Formats: sequence, C-alpha cells, structure tokens
Amino acid sequence: MHVVVNAAMSADGKLSSHRREQIAISGEADFERVDRLRAASDAVVVGVGTVLADDPHLTVKGDDLRDQRRADGRSTNPARVVVDSSGRTPADAAILDDAAATYVCLSEAAPVDRRMTLADHAELVTAGEERVDLLRAFAALQDAGLERVMVEGGGELIFSLFEAGLVDELRVFVGPKIIGGRDAPTLADGEGFLAEFPTLELEEVDRLDDGVLLTWAVDER
Amino acid sequence: MHVVVNAAMSADGKLSSHRREQIAISGEADFERVDRLRAASDAVVVGVGTVLADDPHLTVKGDDLRDQRRADGRSTNPARVVVDSSGRTPADAAILDDAAATYVCLSEAAPVDRRMTLADHAELVTAGEERVDLLRAFAALQDAGLERVMVEGGGELIFSLFEAGLVDELRVFVGPKIIGGRDAPTLADGEGFLAEFPTLELEEVDRLDDGVLLTWAVDER
Repeated sequence: MHVVVNAAMSADGKLSSHRREQIAISGEADFERVDRLRAASDAVVVGVGTVLADDPHLTVKGDDLRDQRRADGRSTNPARVVVDSSGRTPADAAILDDAAATYVCLSEAAPVDRRMTLADHAELVTAGEERVDLLRAFAALQDAGLERVMVEGGGELIFSLFEAGLVDELRVFVGPKIIGGRDAPTLADGEGFLAEFPTLELEEVDRLDDGVLLTWAVDER
Repeated sequence: MHVVVNAAMSADGKLSSHRREQIAISGEADFERVDRLRAASDAVVVGVGTVLADDPHLTVKGDDLRDQRRADGRSTNPARVVVDSSGRTPADAAILDDAAATYVCLSEAAPVDRRMTLADHAELVTAGEERVDLLRAFAALQDAGLERVMVEGGGELIFSLFEAGLVDELRVFVGPKIIGGRDAPTLADGEGFLAEFPTLELEEVDRLDDGVLLTWAVDER
C-alpha cells in the first residue's frame, strides 16, 4: 500500500477558518492536479470531521479522467473511505451515494443503530475499541484491493496517520493567504508530537496557481 | 517603516511543539540568513510569549556582520522590541541586557511595579488600554528612527500584526518535519480571520537546508 496525503494549506498552515468554513486556498491548476491524483488512486480517504464540515463527494471531476479509468477496466471513481470512530457519518452524506464504492471505518464503540444505517450504504470495517485502529483498518482496505491510497484530510486524521507511521508521501499546496487562528484546523492536529517527529525529504518544489506545491517523502521510522 | 515577518515552521505550519519547546526546524544556512536579516534591520521584534518560552537574545551572531554594522556607523546590534501588554517580561530576560537598545511596548494595563522594573533596562512605549495598540506603538518606534523592522514571532504577535495591516513581507522557512498538535503554536494564531483574509504574492521560492524558503509580499488592504 502507498499512502499519499494531499492537502491545501494557507501560508500559515491552516486548512480552513476556525469556524471550519472552507476557504479557497488554491486555484484551477491545483484542482486539476488533485483530480488527476484522485483518478490515479484506488481509494480516497477522509476523516468524519471533513464529512461533517464539507460533505465532499470525492469523485473524479474530469470526464477524460473518468473515461480513462473505464477504458482501463477500472471503476469510474476510486473507492471512498471515511474514518469515523463512532459512526457519525450522516445517512444523507454525499459520500454515501452510489457514485463509488464506500467504506466506513468504525471502532467497536460505534452504536449498533448507526452501524445498521451505514451498512445500507457502505462496507463497514471495524477495528479498534474506542478509536479506529488505523493500522488494522488500512490492512483491511489493502486486503480489499486498495493499494494506491490518497488522504484528503482533515488535520486530525492526518496527524493520526503520521502517528501510526502510515504516510509515505505528503503533497501540500501552500497558498497565498493568511487564515490565522489558534483554533483553526491545521495540516496536522491531534495531540502533536513531542519527540521522534516524523521527518521528511523534500522531493519537489513547483510553483502552481499563486502558490507553491511541496512534495515530501516521509522517512521510514 | 518596512516590516518583515520572519519565521521557521514545520511542514504542517507549527513554530514549536504544543509544550512550546523549541524544535530545530531549519539548519545552518537558514540561521545565517536570519542573522544577515537581523544585521540589516534597525529593530528585531518579538512577543512576550516568545521571551517567556525561549528567552532569546536577538543579537547579531556573525562577527563580520557586527563589524560591518560598526563600520557603517551603526550600533553593533539592532534594537530589540518586546510587545508585552501587561509587562510580563522578566527583569533577568536576555533581551534586557545591555548588548543593544531595548524597547518594551506596554498597554496602560501594565502594573506600575512592572513598569518601574522594566524602565531600568528598557525604553517603555505605552499604547493601548488593555492590549498594545500596535499601530500607535509602531508609529512611536518609527519616530525613534526604527525604519527596517524584523519580526521573529510568535504566532500571536504575527497574527495581530497582520490584523493591524502592518506586515509588508513574510519570509517563511518550511522545514522537513511534522510537529502536529491542535494546540501547538502556528505561524499566525490569535482569533483568526473569517473574511478579508490578508492576501500574499509569492516573490521567491528557494531551496535552503532540507526545506524551502518562501518569500511573500503582503498585498495592501
């Protein structure tokens, strides 16, 4: 399995405002890059916080990219995965429509009624007691044939994936805005590291739109 | 007056760990760049949080740079400025030694005893009732002959300066580490913007040490 985290952050490292409202950080060229990355992936993963804040669809937007996937004998869209320890994904979430296969990764603490509702729309993967055990959940996704995995946020999930040592590559578009806010979501939230910080190798630096795309490889820990 | 904000942040936008412990984010080449920028400045500004967390000296380290300043008929070091609404700078702070002129910007809420202690070591600038009125304080610094001003953090002060429209340029070294932490200091903390986000123009992108230096000009608001 190869896991790429992809995100757009402001020049001060924020994914959105402190009210979790989406802010246009990148532009058309970056949208197209992200769409190509989605199209090249077997699965697109987000945390439940992102589902609740933005209700993303996570499908491939470009007709040519969708056609190419079909021509290659693949599904039109990559699978969608929500990491959702307590089963809070709403039944009417865009991610639960039938545009693509969907997996919801739950912990054992997810209530039975939520579990039953979600099972009508998605494959359920249960791993971990109170919080999703990401190593086990991602192993199950790999068993399901999902090899090339793209993670689109948010900051809580991204931190947990770094903590679990699951991230192979980080692609960050840094955009020409200051969002600010000590409570605004950042690229990596969670508890934070105090030692043994994940270290990166800068692979590429590309100017894009009015910002810069940084491609980092993650050192093995 | 020309105000440059200079900082080093992790790839996820953090200035330090959530315990506010300094983390080595950049390397020798960036240290030398920062030292040259200090040497080219009339004043180096920090918030009191940075003084309390790191006790910086804020002097020019390179002998050649100090010699050059003297040869140019300037003081060996730029002036040091602390923005410190309630006068919390400790009397034994490194910034209060006699290596350079020091200004402490206070609000009217700073207690008289703190004010008297600090007056033994620094010029006091009082502006604002409960918090330092940065526009007035920086006008006073300009009146004192400080034209080229460098701000070294932390995130609370940097946000307030963007809020006041005082920042002309932002230089950020983005380093090859993930620090993480929803409570870790970021490049711009404070309340955060919800609209009228300060916008930037990307002027330069330079690889440096194992990261990248982004130089942004701040658009007039």
